[in-house]
Amino acid sequence: MPAVVTLAEIRKALGAIDPLPLIEAGFAAYSRGEVVVPPVGELEFDDPPGDVHIKYGYIKGDDVYVIKIASGFVENPQRGLPSGDGLMLVFSQKTGVLEAVLLDEGYLTNLRTAVAGAVVAKYLAPRNVPAVGIVGAGVQGRMQLEWLRRVRTFDTAVVWGIDEVELAAFRRDMERPGLKVRTTLRAEEVAAAANLIVTCTPSTRPLLEAAWIRPGTHITAVGSDTAAKQELDPAILARADRIVVDSLSQSELRGEAYRAVSAGAIGRDRLVELGRVIEDETLRRSSDEETTVADLTGVAVQDIQISKAVWLALSRR
Amino acid sequence: MPAVVTLAEIRKALGAIDPLPLIEAGFAAYSRGEVVVPPVGELEFDDPPGDVHIKYGYIKGDDVYVIKIASGFVENPQRGLPSGDGLMLVFSQKTGVLEAVLLDEGYLTNLRTAVAGAVVAKYLAPRNVPAVGIVGAGVQGRMQLEWLRRVRTFDTAVVWGIDEVELAAFRRDMERPGLKVRTTLRAEEVAAAANLIVTCTPSTRPLLEAAWIRPGTHITAVGSDTAAKQELDPAILARADRIVVDSLSQSELRGEAYRAVSAGAIGRDRLVELGRVIEDETLRRSSDEETTVADLTGVAVQDIQISKAVWLALSRR
Repeated sequence: MPAVVTLAEIRKALGAIDPLPLIEAGFAAYSRGEVVVPPVGELEFDDPPGDVHIKYGYIKGDDVYVIKIASGFVENPQRGLPSGDGLMLVFSQKTGVLEAVLLDEGYLTNLRTAVAGAVVAKYLAPRNVPAVGIVGAGVQGRMQLEWLRRVRTFDTAVVWGIDEVELAAFRRDMERPGLKVRTTLRAEEVAAAANLIVTCTPSTRPLLEAAWIRPGTHITAVGSDTAAKQELDPAILARADRIVVDSLSQSELRGEAYRAVSAGAIGRDRLVELGRVIEDETLRRSSDEETTVADLTGVAVQDIQISKAVWLALSRR
Repeated sequence: MPAVVTLAEIRKALGAIDPLPLIEAGFAAYSRGEVVVPPVGELEFDDPPGDVHIKYGYIKGDDVYVIKIASGFVENPQRGLPSGDGLMLVFSQKTGVLEAVLLDEGYLTNLRTAVAGAVVAKYLAPRNVPAVGIVGAGVQGRMQLEWLRRVRTFDTAVVWGIDEVELAAFRRDMERPGLKVRTTLRAEEVAAAANLIVTCTPSTRPLLEAAWIRPGTHITAVGSDTAAKQELDPAILARADRIVVDSLSQSELRGEAYRAVSAGAIGRDRLVELGRVIEDETLRRSSDEETTVADLTGVAVQDIQISKAVWLALSRR
């Protein structure tokens, strides 16, 4: 009988875990070819609209393999439900036996995504950040803002959202001594104020335009994880000095890089994989003048690393 | 919080369910194009050898979607573990919320596979069956034999296995008044005695040769669900009057039909999908002289139908 672990227990276990070095090591192993990650499994629904991703794989020679399921149903909040749900399954790599069902309700996916944003910012964001910009005032926007504090010092966040209600809630949740939160309904204002921007929406059309972006800005695009979703004007990628993707293979089918390549704005030879940036300092930002973009579609190695750490912490007790 | 259902509870719920019409209806809906079934997700392991299949999808307009994970690690019995394990996850198609985790340990996969064997035999097996042949004396061989009794009358089974120990266990488990079980280490003897044969092994080389097969025989090949596995000499398919597959799209990448097409023994135009056979009587066996072959790779619609029925039975209580 596998362990069935609730979100409350997962949160408790996370108290003893620093996910940042784990996620970073995972991306590095992935780009070294040490991780088996088959193509993302995908289900799409029309009525109501929703999508489900199955991400799975294993690190060669490791003890476990992991299957993660995460869903997004954008109309759920109208029914009083969170839009995201999910779980992670941890199996033995030696016997196939199911060891743990982590009923994280999508929380571990949110966490490993926010941590990936921090890993990217560590290597690609400018050193001096007058203000962080967050496009998308949901759960992921909050978590990205929180995790960026780990790798950069800043005292202002400028947040774009779709209405005043969600923006007021964001400010209420996130403003504190040392962090001023400004809100706006015009994404252009985010670009005007911030030189470290994270986009985290389910948008299917560009929210940021190339003309708005200040030289020296770094943008991490987190929201686009399907072929249909898009948050950035392809010209932003075309003008960037560096374009980093979490997975070269996934970027052939989904995400901002996919959209920019499809639009003819960039060639695939412009793309560099995050794990290589982690291991090779010549691939990182070299001055505060460079404009850089990172496109995160979410890679199973993140799910493997975070769920393995949680399960190890719980099974050792 | 989703329901977490143990194998014991699943077995109890199955007492009130007749899976045969459900599986049959599932195949028919699948061949009518009413079921969304993305390509099978697959993980393979070398040391120890194992494979994992992720099968998933949904019937359009239904309440649920289902993700099934099943693994086979052939060396597990040496560690005192069953070679197969698995679980099925039932989610709402309207919200993505996880409703039930069916910890069936692979039992529901075994069941829906055996039931598919009975559905095939119902339409393709000869009317008069002097003896049933079972190639592979494991769990699936037992279940196939059991379920064939539902659709044909016979009093003898001839069973091939890899050693006398497993064959003796098979006979002990399955022989009863009205069913004589003969065992053999030579698969040729199965073909000589039986005109309704089911192969259910993880073999990667043919176990049955074309020259052995009596005219008028029906063979259902259940074991081959990857590109590497194979139980039948491609010439068996080449000489057959009818070749039925459970999924035309899956047969492009796995199973006996895939192997026979790759070997140049047959063209893909020879293949007919099981759901069409269920709905069109002109596609079924028309005389006891025809030789027929069915190749089952296992389709997510079977998992959807069986897990939905179990979950409905449990949630109504």
